[in-house]
Amino acid sequence: MAFSEAILTTDRWPKSCSLRAGGVTLSVQAKGAGMMQPDFATMLCFVQTDAVVEDADALLRDAVAASFERISVDGQLSTNDTVLLQATGEAGKPLPDGLLQAVLLQLALEIVADGEGSVRVGRVQVEGAASSEEAERVARAIANSPLVKTALFGRDPNWGRIAQAAGMALAGEDLEEIGAGSIDAAELGEDVAEAEIGLRLDRGDGAAHVWFSDLGYEYVRINAEYTT
Amino acid sequence: MAFSEAILTTDRWPKSCSLRAGGVTLSVQAKGAGMMQPDFATMLCFVQTDAVVEDADALLRDAVAASFERISVDGQLSTNDTVLLQATGEAGKPLPDGLLQAVLLQLALEIVADGEGSVRVGRVQVEGAASSEEAERVARAIANSPLVKTALFGRDPNWGRIAQAAGMALAGEDLEEIGAGSIDAAELGEDVAEAEIGLRLDRGDGAAHVWFSDLGYEYVRINAEYTT
Repeated sequence: MAFSEAILTTDRWPKSCSLRAGGVTLSVQAKGAGMMQPDFATMLCFVQTDAVVEDADALLRDAVAASFERISVDGQLSTNDTVLLQATGEAGKPLPDGLLQAVLLQLALEIVADGEGSVRVGRVQVEGAASSEEAERVARAIANSPLVKTALFGRDPNWGRIAQAAGMALAGEDLEEIGAGSIDAAELGEDVAEAEIGLRLDRGDGAAHVWFSDLGYEYVRINAEYTT
Repeated sequence: MAFSEAILTTDRWPKSCSLRAGGVTLSVQAKGAGMMQPDFATMLCFVQTDAVVEDADALLRDAVAASFERISVDGQLSTNDTVLLQATGEAGKPLPDGLLQAVLLQLALEIVADGEGSVRVGRVQVEGAASSEEAERVARAIANSPLVKTALFGRDPNWGRIAQAAGMALAGEDLEEIGAGSIDAAELGEDVAEAEIGLRLDRGDGAAHVWFSDLGYEYVRINAEYTT
């Protein structure tokens, strides 16, 4: 597809997949490497299927919430993102449950791995927060902290930086309630391509996770040398 | 002073000054380069004077609000900062108006200039916000944006990144009201040690400014190689 090839040239690698399951075909193409490129649409994702899709809007919103909305490259809001779903219904069958979400998640993770200058992907999982909103706020504070991102790049299992970012997101809350938490940052120091950070609070049942890219020399080079 | 010399060794240069004005002497020493160092107090500032200081707490709070609270190195809250004022009263005269604030501001700017790996200082001035709180929120969003900080490092007058950071801080507000603003980012591209960014909104009389350091290769090196 000529259009797809053209829009994929700003990325380090093309992000697409096509598969058949349950008698239907699902094809997805995406582009995106930074959350912000002033000169063109930041993230584009096109989905085509011959399945019958009844409530395309709800299906797409749920799948995007569990995939593209769970990633962060540098914490900067994108100016314009697009995810487009086209369903012809020719196969006469519905999409298997969870298939769209799984495929979008795979492409979202490729966008993080292809984040500007990224060499390692981190995943932060927050549990035991007072609510899922609080858990997400804490997870994003950790994922967007330049100190955590450089620790991911430098393979430094630095729990102090994670605690500081979490504390910043929970500023104003009762410290007694936060006290009983625990942090697992061991994988930051290990030789793994995707490092997992676990943070357990003792405030309730709220949980959230975010994937994020590291902050290394290439991020600086790309963004310092990019000229308007 | 042996103690002062000892605490200043983590900085690239010592930050201190001593002056006489209006018949009193004022001496200040400070240390600090990153907003977050888990192993020791991040920022320390000691002030000594022989002036008579009536309400030391209010004087110090006002001076700190206009100096140390106006700077950001990497947007990460410090775990513990200290500013200590000692006044003997021996001179029998008060401190000249504004002297303490001017001296603390000078040292605060030296801390930004000595920020981890910093080579350039930026100052963002936001005017025309709906309130001073909104102006400060927008100024800090710009000062802490990794894209603006790399643009400061790369001498790129990138107004798009400033607009994006401001838009992020104003998300949810009426875009019509923001519309008439203007951005001056010209100094980012000029050969000046301190680059000024001006952002004018059209929402009210709120104003605020923040000084910040850039994000370059040295920031990554220092924070990726710092080991717990």
